[in-house]
Amino acid sequence: MKKIGVILSGCGVYDGTEIHEAVLTLLSIDKAMAEAVCFAPDIPQHHVINHLTGEVSEGETRNVLVESARIARGAIRNLKEIDSLILDALIIPGGFGAAKNLSDYAFRGASCEVLPEVAEAIRKFHSTGKPIGFLCIAPVIAARLFGSDSIEVTIGNDAATAGDIAAMGARHVNRRVDEILVSADGKVVTTPAYMLGPSIADVAKGIDALVVKVLELC
Amino acid sequence: MKKIGVILSGCGVYDGTEIHEAVLTLLSIDKAMAEAVCFAPDIPQHHVINHLTGEVSEGETRNVLVESARIARGAIRNLKEIDSLILDALIIPGGFGAAKNLSDYAFRGASCEVLPEVAEAIRKFHSTGKPIGFLCIAPVIAARLFGSDSIEVTIGNDAATAGDIAAMGARHVNRRVDEILVSADGKVVTTPAYMLGPSIADVAKGIDALVVKVLELC
Repeated sequence: MKKIGVILSGCGVYDGTEIHEAVLTLLSIDKAMAEAVCFAPDIPQHHVINHLTGEVSEGETRNVLVESARIARGAIRNLKEIDSLILDALIIPGGFGAAKNLSDYAFRGASCEVLPEVAEAIRKFHSTGKPIGFLCIAPVIAARLFGSDSIEVTIGNDAATAGDIAAMGARHVNRRVDEILVSADGKVVTTPAYMLGPSIADVAKGIDALVVKVLELC
Repeated sequence: MKKIGVILSGCGVYDGTEIHEAVLTLLSIDKAMAEAVCFAPDIPQHHVINHLTGEVSEGETRNVLVESARIARGAIRNLKEIDSLILDALIIPGGFGAAKNLSDYAFRGASCEVLPEVAEAIRKFHSTGKPIGFLCIAPVIAARLFGSDSIEVTIGNDAATAGDIAAMGARHVNRRVDEILVSADGKVVTTPAYMLGPSIADVAKGIDALVVKVLELC
């Protein structure tokens, strides 16, 4: 049975992993008879957003690994323990957590940096030829790390984000929510998910296609 | 387009709504071309559980409506605003939130009480003949409210919970995770979900069947 690492970044679209995208990823992996192994960095969240009001919850602090454990029903490990040797592929769902906790793209745009332990894990998978899937806004991380290789990614059709991706050296290609994009090197797969939506069933189609392709490429 | 109210109870299996069950419910509703409208009570959670360690997070407080908003991506309303006249059905996912926040079943077993605003909403739907779906542990709420009508429910096959359900006057019927049970009055639909699991794809089958049946009964 193939094992896919899933890197989470909290629990909630505005300050962590987009919950639907993460759950749909786990569902697609299970339906494809593969095993998901969840990881998250043991770091404080950039901030906590009250998802009812959209406001920052001042003075509140939460931990990315602890909150990600909610999505994983407790079955999650510290990202530092990830071992690319026993995993066949990697998938990174979206949500602002990818742009606030795993990287600082939400604040620095094309000048963003990727959290070192996230960058290290992704580079290890990529350098050993293992496929990596990025959903929603997470492809900006691929652009940052592999932009110098002119990697192709999609985040849907948002012009500003596509511009940032180009500024990082990668090539953005428009895709529909039910579509995926495979990079020319055959190892990076992306899908727009909630960068386009609009509904959960739409997003599910693209994620299903991404998971199937990632497993095919293993 | 049919509208289905979904009552959430927080965000995380140990102190709120079981996240996978909630997301799968929203997915099944959307796939069936119906509209989900999320609600949660504006009350403090019974407690906060660290989902990484399983321990109570002492001194931390969270609000059920605010945390539920994470699953609903912000599109959620105070349960007090629920209007059974404009909704066609109701679904209540499981997770300990159903047994700690919506009711106190986790602490009082067969002597449990249901949060008054939850009981009122459910009774209104039931008395007007609208179908209600209960997942996982949530059928104990149906047993508490409709036990005097000898309603039939399933939570899978857990003997202790089935015993409590019988003690509340309802009749428990064993079902597999991919199966549903429809009460004799044709208005209460239940499925075991993560009371059995084991995997997300298994749980998805039962939830899909429950949503289809609830919509059929509208």
